[in-house]
Amino acid sequence: MPPDVGSLVERARAGDPRAVGRLISLVENASPALREVMRALMPHIGRAQVIGLTGSPGVGKSTTTAALVSAYRRRDLRVGVLAIDPSSPFSGGALLGDRVRMQEHATDSAVYIRSMASRGHLGGLAWSTPQALRVLDAAGCDVVLVETVGVGQAEVDVASLADSTLVLVAPGMGDAIQAAKAGILEIADIFVVNKADREGADATARDLRHMLSLGDARQAGEWQPPIVKTVASRGEGIDDVVAALDRHREWLVASGRLDAKRRVRAADEIEAIAVTALRERIGDLHSGTLLDELAGRVAAAELDPYAAADELVAGLTSS
Amino acid sequence: MPPDVGSLVERARAGDPRAVGRLISLVENASPALREVMRALMPHIGRAQVIGLTGSPGVGKSTTTAALVSAYRRRDLRVGVLAIDPSSPFSGGALLGDRVRMQEHATDSAVYIRSMASRGHLGGLAWSTPQALRVLDAAGCDVVLVETVGVGQAEVDVASLADSTLVLVAPGMGDAIQAAKAGILEIADIFVVNKADREGADATARDLRHMLSLGDARQAGEWQPPIVKTVASRGEGIDDVVAALDRHREWLVASGRLDAKRRVRAADEIEAIAVTALRERIGDLHSGTLLDELAGRVAAAELDPYAAADELVAGLTSS
Repeated sequence: MPPDVGSLVERARAGDPRAVGRLISLVENASPALREVMRALMPHIGRAQVIGLTGSPGVGKSTTTAALVSAYRRRDLRVGVLAIDPSSPFSGGALLGDRVRMQEHATDSAVYIRSMASRGHLGGLAWSTPQALRVLDAAGCDVVLVETVGVGQAEVDVASLADSTLVLVAPGMGDAIQAAKAGILEIADIFVVNKADREGADATARDLRHMLSLGDARQAGEWQPPIVKTVASRGEGIDDVVAALDRHREWLVASGRLDAKRRVRAADEIEAIAVTALRERIGDLHSGTLLDELAGRVAAAELDPYAAADELVAGLTSS
Repeated sequence: MPPDVGSLVERARAGDPRAVGRLISLVENASPALREVMRALMPHIGRAQVIGLTGSPGVGKSTTTAALVSAYRRRDLRVGVLAIDPSSPFSGGALLGDRVRMQEHATDSAVYIRSMASRGHLGGLAWSTPQALRVLDAAGCDVVLVETVGVGQAEVDVASLADSTLVLVAPGMGDAIQAAKAGILEIADIFVVNKADREGADATARDLRHMLSLGDARQAGEWQPPIVKTVASRGEGIDDVVAALDRHREWLVASGRLDAKRRVRAADEIEAIAVTALRERIGDLHSGTLLDELAGRVAAAELDPYAAADELVAGLTSS
């Protein structure tokens, strides 16, 4: 039986976590109802503050996420959490599953927690992540935390989805250097030096400040990423992180950057959907034989790949 | 002045490393001559054995690559090396640059070594890597070694470009487990336990064998990935790796898998070129304003992203 999308959206907006979960499953599995779901969600979106969290394994991302959930719950806000799992493209499964640290929030109906596999074929983040964000936004979440695990492209992608991106580092792991190498210095709106009760926290903060000063000089009026020290496992410094997030949000709105970010995000999403549709059409050309036939000729060195691609594109735009 | 492609290809085939380098630069920078270069190369390709090397940082990939180059040079074969750098999408630079370990081969005109940045926008491997492979193949390299650094999507991509993929692990790094998590067990045609003079080498080999036995039972006639122990820094075990590569190559040819792999690779490449061309056309629609206009409407929640994508695709196929 096809799902009653209108009723699901209504129940999700009333705070029914099963309805939220069902909607995310519909968008995650690219169900036939996906377009209907998106249409039904659109009138309700645009309110949630989207916060990305990233950093090397072991830096305390899940603990920090849980502490931020508690802080926003104290403000009586509804919170969504999307944990993106860089699982194997082969196994298809999620390595982490549900998060132990999150259990204190598991029975709170104003907190919605979901793990999503990153399938990798759109550059790291699950292609369905933007759609899942829309579901949580439309369902009335005031804040959505998007946590990525691992290091790499996903960290860069999360910055494009989030309004504000937290980059977590820990003392004594050479993390500031690692962050610089992985290209995640540039994506941080706020740095969090977690486990700041450990030796070397001040040195790590100093390293970060130094590396930031080495980067391109920021123009006047640009955002200067603050460095906040936390011990997330004891909740220390979390209010400072929230205050920094509030300040960043205000700056985004006042500077017009929030609108600009959302336009870029929408353009990326539209283009990704269009390219997926075009790939499907390419696969369908000549009853699905054209690409295969061209590949055979390229593999046999009878045709160069650019000339083959020209034939595909011509087939697509003339059909 | 536009390059004289015919003369460059002739000089590259005669073994002039500067001509090889110039051709790779032309394909790497997507120069206007790219199509002409590809057409000129096609009659000469299809001979090189492409070998991928991958594994966690510190496992000895560069040392093993250098030792394999020496082994193939003793057979008097011409060797190309492409080292793929997972550099920051922001910095654009290559972190590793030229390899110290490779210096012994730097003056050997039968060895061509090149670092390439992975730009990340086609899922890890530089989009120009297949084209650079074609240049080295056409230039008469008998063997091309493709070395990826880091862990992630690039490891999976290298397997799709290579005829044979070596996965390197080292004792006592929990590397077998890491490899399983990263999904690179499945891509290995041959496992190399490097630094096998260290404690734990036998345990690592045993772990690997155990994990392979846990995977899907391989059908009769399927390739069983061997596990080879090496101390690459002293050249120990390298002949065994080369022998395993020879056996895998024979199996690929006899089973018809080499042809099948090359067809899949050609199809992927053609599709990637076609999608890039389609993205450019999308960007050009309505003098470059259509995507931006649709993004504005989606960001303002006036239009859902699927309906917006439909308009893009319609504009593309009717123009």
